[in-house]
Amino acid sequence: MFDKKIYINRRHRLKQQLGSGIVLFPGHDQSPINFADNTYPFRQDSSFLYFFGHNRPGLTGVLDIDNNNDYLFGNDAGIDDMVWTGHQPYISELAQMVGIKKTGTLAELESFMQNAFSSRNDLPSHKGFSSGNTIHFLPPYRAQTRLKLLRWSGFSSVAIEPSPELIKAVIAQREIKTEQEIIQIEQAINITVDMHTDAIRMTKAGITEQHVVAALYNKIHDAGVSMSFTPIATTQGEILHNHFYGNTLKSGDLFLLDSGVENAMHYASDLSSTFPVNNTFTSVQKDIYSITLDAHETAIAALKPGVAFKDVHFKACRSIASGLKELGLMKGDVNEAVLAGAHALFFPCGTGHMMGLDVHDMEDLGETYVGYDGEAKSTQFGLKSLRLGKVLKPGFVLTIEPGIYFIPALIDKWRAEKKFTDFINYDALEPYLTFGGIRNEEDYLITENGARLLGNPKPKTIADIENLKK
Amino acid sequence: MFDKKIYINRRHRLKQQLGSGIVLFPGHDQSPINFADNTYPFRQDSSFLYFFGHNRPGLTGVLDIDNNNDYLFGNDAGIDDMVWTGHQPYISELAQMVGIKKTGTLAELESFMQNAFSSRNDLPSHKGFSSGNTIHFLPPYRAQTRLKLLRWSGFSSVAIEPSPELIKAVIAQREIKTEQEIIQIEQAINITVDMHTDAIRMTKAGITEQHVVAALYNKIHDAGVSMSFTPIATTQGEILHNHFYGNTLKSGDLFLLDSGVENAMHYASDLSSTFPVNNTFTSVQKDIYSITLDAHETAIAALKPGVAFKDVHFKACRSIASGLKELGLMKGDVNEAVLAGAHALFFPCGTGHMMGLDVHDMEDLGETYVGYDGEAKSTQFGLKSLRLGKVLKPGFVLTIEPGIYFIPALIDKWRAEKKFTDFINYDALEPYLTFGGIRNEEDYLITENGARLLGNPKPKTIADIENLKK
Repeated sequence: MFDKKIYINRRHRLKQQLGSGIVLFPGHDQSPINFADNTYPFRQDSSFLYFFGHNRPGLTGVLDIDNNNDYLFGNDAGIDDMVWTGHQPYISELAQMVGIKKTGTLAELESFMQNAFSSRNDLPSHKGFSSGNTIHFLPPYRAQTRLKLLRWSGFSSVAIEPSPELIKAVIAQREIKTEQEIIQIEQAINITVDMHTDAIRMTKAGITEQHVVAALYNKIHDAGVSMSFTPIATTQGEILHNHFYGNTLKSGDLFLLDSGVENAMHYASDLSSTFPVNNTFTSVQKDIYSITLDAHETAIAALKPGVAFKDVHFKACRSIASGLKELGLMKGDVNEAVLAGAHALFFPCGTGHMMGLDVHDMEDLGETYVGYDGEAKSTQFGLKSLRLGKVLKPGFVLTIEPGIYFIPALIDKWRAEKKFTDFINYDALEPYLTFGGIRNEEDYLITENGARLLGNPKPKTIADIENLKK
Repeated sequence: MFDKKIYINRRHRLKQQLGSGIVLFPGHDQSPINFADNTYPFRQDSSFLYFFGHNRPGLTGVLDIDNNNDYLFGNDAGIDDMVWTGHQPYISELAQMVGIKKTGTLAELESFMQNAFSSRNDLPSHKGFSSGNTIHFLPPYRAQTRLKLLRWSGFSSVAIEPSPELIKAVIAQREIKTEQEIIQIEQAINITVDMHTDAIRMTKAGITEQHVVAALYNKIHDAGVSMSFTPIATTQGEILHNHFYGNTLKSGDLFLLDSGVENAMHYASDLSSTFPVNNTFTSVQKDIYSITLDAHETAIAALKPGVAFKDVHFKACRSIASGLKELGLMKGDVNEAVLAGAHALFFPCGTGHMMGLDVHDMEDLGETYVGYDGEAKSTQFGLKSLRLGKVLKPGFVLTIEPGIYFIPALIDKWRAEKKFTDFINYDALEPYLTFGGIRNEEDYLITENGARLLGNPKPKTIADIENLKK
């Protein structure tokens, strides 16, 4: 099941790049819902999975670069544990599976880490400590990890500063997907394409959003996989992160489905489809759908190594602005409108993001490095939600997902503020206030010369979708 | 939707009982899976739900008893948030729905709490602080809550000691279920009974455990509810907390299903059923099943106010030991065997636990108070897993779930240690090493004179089950 060479190589490269010090990967513990023993489905930290492989709670990986030792720390299950969980492999077996010879208990980890922290000469004496050049760790996004760091360091701290060197080193590896990783991602995508196809077929007036969601879960539970994130399955597609499933589908509604699968090796997919509840789109729906599809194809055509994804995003934005101008909803110079951010009234988010072990890959490491190579991200409305802006390299996996959303609260606010009146025809927007939102989303691999669609194609054109509903 | 009087009364009783000081209910934030924005389905802290009603992240409730002020702290959603989440009610609206007049932002909460902590004269100067007689809080089982307490208190701490007075006061209220609460619980149970009935009908040789689990999830997603805990659905019923669903059902297997629902108001159910994959039980399976059912009925007959649940448990244990003695698996004096803990080889867990907003109700408050009224729990193997031992009162809701499990690793260990050879016929156990495990579980309300089964009856007798499989 595990190819230990992969993990040995990954850790080796990381140690070479960092050169010296101790590298700390605190794996996840269980995450409590309403008490310690009632936990969410366990999910390991993605960087831990990448370097140490095991999707189990209670493990910590440590790389002692100076002495060239890799450690896996954890406690073996006792008979009392086995009564509740069945037989569990020993820590030494887990370590061996990923090419590690040194193991220790969690008590040994405590003293190991306390020694490591106490021997550092660069720790400040005031509250707060940073992950410097002797002890490296990634940003702790779970409170349980922050607490461990506080305990090991012996410090009370509001500010916990992770190691920029480590962040950059991890990103440099994880952002370039290997062939084996692509296989995993495509497996997740193919299951998702089936889910979307089924959803397009099943939607009709009178059923509930909840009913569609039940069918999606039935599919993933039957396949023995899980969702990579909580699905969006809604007739109110203009609400970008809508997790409400209480509406009944009505004739004339558009249905927006954004869902992905996490496969057995924990690789994610992320697809969106928008389709009519009825068997055909209305003519107004076709107009807007065609504009989003043009933007989608424009973005895909621009994908290749050496291109900054920010420019791909701008191309998609200009494509949307042109289309809306033709419809009479925008006006003026398209280029100026996009630079000013006027299009963000309709497209307030990004054209895509990295994808891999995480649905937003490595988002826990910080977008500055993952998406922008250290450059500051724009603070402009719309552009500030673009998670990826940097220059593309072969091996990147990313989503393409431009969309158009008519968000009544945002339209009302901008109109009242007389914002971008040179670029937006507010009067013409009146009939669209109940339109909803449209997004298609596919996953692409950057290749040596361009980009390749990952997985089986999903229904995307108006004809594709209407044929499925026949 | 909310009856504000209920929440006002609950807080009023709590303030009366505590008399003075500040009471702190830090509500939950989102719980991150693999990065901050990819979160598990949100679940509020149950005590927060009980006193402040709202199942939303980012809220904290504070009761200032000395000045008779109740506060709800949280931040209103701005337009940027609404782009992602749709319209959200204001904090002042949420407060009003549960009868609270004073609100504040999270920044205001920070200074409020820092003032409160800094004005305490009983805080120790060394690392660690306790919830004493001026600031009360419940045990923080989520790391995110422990971090908040550390920040507010300005202390670095390994030990965080919650307030025993507050724990006792909350338990005194929550352990007595009202009629409205019983309605919620029965609603959750009735959905679960349907799920179990369907599972009994659908199991047959050749399908996978995963397939049964998929059907369970389909049912809850269709009903718009969630699981109250991760289901156990297994042909290896001897593994008590088995969450593996990879086995294919074989002719002759027993299937153990332990699952519950959390209804829209967050009340839990918890039922277990054990049934043959084939249409009928084998004669050996009937023998063991009948023993568990006798123990089950014995426990139910003993339920009434004034009886210690520990004694109900002992009755169930003696019933199991007698049955196993008749089968030749145990020997000697049944009473002595149970007092010594020999029966725990087959029944290493408890006869039941409290149930309510949590599937193990209030387990986050500590079993010492919830289950034992402050008395120390036994450390004997088996008995130490009994979550409830104290004297029953009308209004308690609890599970009844004695079972028999043949756990090969435990049998081998005890046999090698020559443990309880006066009470156990190890030689006779040989044919049972692959038997598995059996448990029935139902939920009961303690009434003025006895107990009442909650919800619709689930299939329980051998005849019930075999009729369903016809």
